[in-house]
This record gives sequence, structure tokens and C-alpha cells, in this order.
Amino acid sequence: MEVITSSQNPKIKNVLRLRERKHRLRQQRTLVDGVREIQRAILGGFLPLEVFVRDNLVSDRSLQSPEVASLLQQLQQANVSIWEVAERPFEKIAYGNRDEGMVAVVQIPDRRIGELAATLNLASSNEQSKIIGIIERIEKPGNIGAVIRSADGAGLDAVICVDCVTDLFNPNVIRASLGTIFGLPVLEASAAEVRSWLEEYKFATRVARVDGAVPYWQAAYLGRCAIVLGSEADGVTDDWKSDQYQGVYLPMHGLADSLNISATAAVLFYEAKRQRSHNA
Amino acid sequence: MEVITSSQNPKIKNVLRLRERKHRLRQQRTLVDGVREIQRAILGGFLPLEVFVRDNLVSDRSLQSPEVASLLQQLQQANVSIWEVAERPFEKIAYGNRDEGMVAVVQIPDRRIGELAATLNLASSNEQSKIIGIIERIEKPGNIGAVIRSADGAGLDAVICVDCVTDLFNPNVIRASLGTIFGLPVLEASAAEVRSWLEEYKFATRVARVDGAVPYWQAAYLGRCAIVLGSEADGVTDDWKSDQYQGVYLPMHGLADSLNISATAAVLFYEAKRQRSHNA
Repeated sequence: MEVITSSQNPKIKNVLRLRERKHRLRQQRTLVDGVREIQRAILGGFLPLEVFVRDNLVSDRSLQSPEVASLLQQLQQANVSIWEVAERPFEKIAYGNRDEGMVAVVQIPDRRIGELAATLNLASSNEQSKIIGIIERIEKPGNIGAVIRSADGAGLDAVICVDCVTDLFNPNVIRASLGTIFGLPVLEASAAEVRSWLEEYKFATRVARVDGAVPYWQAAYLGRCAIVLGSEADGVTDDWKSDQYQGVYLPMHGLADSLNISATAAVLFYEAKRQRSHNA
Repeated sequence: MEVITSSQNPKIKNVLRLRERKHRLRQQRTLVDGVREIQRAILGGFLPLEVFVRDNLVSDRSLQSPEVASLLQQLQQANVSIWEVAERPFEKIAYGNRDEGMVAVVQIPDRRIGELAATLNLASSNEQSKIIGIIERIEKPGNIGAVIRSADGAGLDAVICVDCVTDLFNPNVIRASLGTIFGLPVLEASAAEVRSWLEEYKFATRVARVDGAVPYWQAAYLGRCAIVLGSEADGVTDDWKSDQYQGVYLPMHGLADSLNISATAAVLFYEAKRQRSHNA
């Protein structure tokens, strides 16, 4: 294990750069903060390229939780470069007050919608039961991450982000997803690409709309199904309001006219899960 | 309309104090930030005691949205004291970057569980269809507010907070609830009080637990029903694990073992709503 003591160390400087979108896109790498998040990256097949650990966490075993000890061992066995970082430079690269003493650099996957049908095995006529979440123009990394966390929980097969303002592998998205972003295919695509893809693979598409045609529980989410959610401020764009897509709404009984995007996503994804369990 | 130009003005100093819990509890008053939130306080019957408005919002009508203009008019008609506040003192009392130029002081309601049965008309045998959300030991104001927002949307009849670390009418709870906290009875009570109340009024109680007995959709949420949610870190306390309460879980299909508390609440509250619509 090598030790870094200076904030001017080029490796430290590069981690700092990866907090910025342009550098993440240029390098196709991102940062994963937190022990559980790094564990889940590994579980999802994203072995870190390198890991930075606060020095006292390495030298003082009494500070190591069982999770930290086991993760360090796992990384060593996999020959991942681990850098021991002195307090001061570590503070620079750590993410605010959520610092758990470990930051990993991970490759951003190059996922294209053109490959999604193969990933989901849609050429096979046996694969008739797939469910996909589609989110459009979501701004807040916390909301994107929360939607992905619910998608992971409900067992969705993929999440597609359309015109999202944030880059999908923003460290704050990863964090808000609690690392579940590494557990299912999550990718970006244009609205036009997504719509022709849905048509080609015959997905029944349900669109969350305040002015939807039916309460969400009157729609079916079986077979090949997609659930579309728009931005909190404006909902989905007009292209999703054509007759080929069924608009569904959550009945609102109180003062507010909508739920938070992540709450709406959780309700719809779990309604799909519920229906699929009853029809399994 | 009176004008305040100094940050040393006693009214400004008192608004600042109301950002602190101890002063809110002592004065039984809290702050409502934001135009929509103040509107909803009024809709819920909480006419502000006084309102502070950034001076340019008053003097420059071009800065007034239709909502702001209509709210100011409504407040004036109701004889609410409106204080025009110069830029600098207003910045002090405004809540961070969510500043919409208006802050209201509102009385905190003194709601007791002993009065809830009367509020909900439970003495009447015709009132057999009531649904209550109970949250225990939730720390983050944002989570409490989000749960209340979902409860408002799903049409719950009340929300009870048990041993919550945050005071219920914390301005951040109000903000996260988007002001919906003013739309339904929300109150604090001890776990013992809540449990004897549930027994007395014969509420069927469903408790969200990772190790619940059945998937949540196999439980019924009809008649008089309560849904209990525990803290994100530890779940509910042991007292909620007795046989008289049915434990329900959200099936988790991915890397994570639970959803966010607000997502779980939305799923369960809307499942109750769904079942009640089918049985209405």
C-alpha cells in the first residue's frame, strides 16, 4: 500500500477533477464514496480502478469496522491499487460530511440503447416479461439516485434517462442510489431513440401524468412494460402524450397536486411488481 | 405596510430565533418559507400571525408573480401584519437558497392524541374507514416532510410521530412537506400512548418490517387501519413486533435491502388507497 501525504500529489489532483462533470465525461471515470457503495459497485461487476483510504483507517485497525476490513481485504486480493492518504489531502477528496474514509475510482460503463435488447435478451420470444423505468429531464442528482434505488428494489430490468440534466454517474447520483446504480443497466438515450426502441420491442408504455386517463392501479404493468416519469416541475414532454401511451395518475386527496418524483416512481414500480407477483 | 431596514430590529431578531427549536417550542410558533407553503397554511386554517416580505417584491410589481400578488392581497384582506424588509435583513431571515421573498410566522397547533378520536369522529359507528400513518424515531426533517406529503396525497386521516428527533413543525419539515403538513392532523405522541389508542379504537395495524410476515400487498388496509414505519437505520422498535400487529415487507429484488423511508411510506399509503378504492 502506498502513502500519499501531499495535496499536490497528481493522483489527488485527478480525484478532485473527477468531482467535475467535464472531467468525468472526458476520462469516462467517476468516484464512488462510501463503504457500502463501493461494495455494491464490486457486486455489480465494477471493480474499482483504484481506491483512496484515509491513513488512520489503514494504520489503526480499531477504526476498521468489519465491513471496512473485509472490503480492504477483497480489494487487495483483486490487486486493486489502494492509496493510503494523509488526513489533509484526504479531506480534500472526500465528499463533505458523508466521509467514510474511502473513495474509489470506477470506470463509467459505455452503455448504449442499441445494445439493451441484447442485454435483456429480447430477441427470445421467451422473454416477454421485462419492465423498464424511463425518467425524463430530471435535474436533481438526489432524485435520479432515489428513483434508481426504487427501481433496484422493485426488480426493474433497466432504467433509461432521457435528456437528464445531470450526468448519470455523477457521484451524488451514485450516493443517492446507495450504490444500487451498479446493480441494473442504467443508461442515457434521446427521447426519439427511446420511443422507437419501445415500438420496435413492443413495450406497453404507461406515462405518469397529472392529467392521465386512469388511476395508476387501473393500468396493467405486465409483459413488456415501460413506466415513464417526467420532471417534477413540468411532468413529461408532449411527445409522451400521444395515444399510443397510456397516461396514468396518482389520485391526490390533499393540498398538493403531485408527489415527489421518487415517491411516484416507488408507487408505480411496486404496483408493477405487485401485479407481476399475482400473475406469476 | 411597515418597513424594516435594520437587522437589529427586534422583529427580525425574533424570526431568527424561530429557526431554533427551543424558541419554537417556547413560543409555540414556527416559520413557513415560500409562497405555496404559506398558501397551504392558510388553506389548512393556519392564518399567519405576521408575514415578512422582501421590499423589492412589494415595491416592484413586475417581480410579483400572480401567486405572490394574490397571496399579498389575501393577507391584507385578512388584516395580517405584513412587514416590508430591506434586502440585507431579509437575507438574514430567509432560508438559504430557497428564498422566495416571503416568510410567515405561524402558530404551532397544540394537538393531543387524546383529542384525535373526536377530530376523526371515531365515537360514531359510521366512521369505520379511517387510515393513519405512524412514524417512529425519524431523524431527518426532509424525510418527515416527505412522508407527510405522501400521506396528504394518499388521503390519510392523520399522521402521528412517535419519539421523532425533530420537532414536527420545524421549518424544514414544513418545507419538505410542501406545506401539506397544514392539510391534515399531524401530531406527536409517545409509543405507549399510540399503542393504547390503537387498541381502544380497534385499528388494524400493519408494521413495515424488513422481516415482516407477508409482502405488503397481502395485507388488508381497510376499515380502521394504521401503517407504522420505523427509522431508516433501525426500523421499528421491538414493541411494534408483537403478534397483535401484522408485519409487512416490501420485496427487495436488487442490491439494497430497503427503500428510503419516504418511498416505503408512499408505496404503503397508496396500496391502502388502492384497496380502499376497490372496496368503496
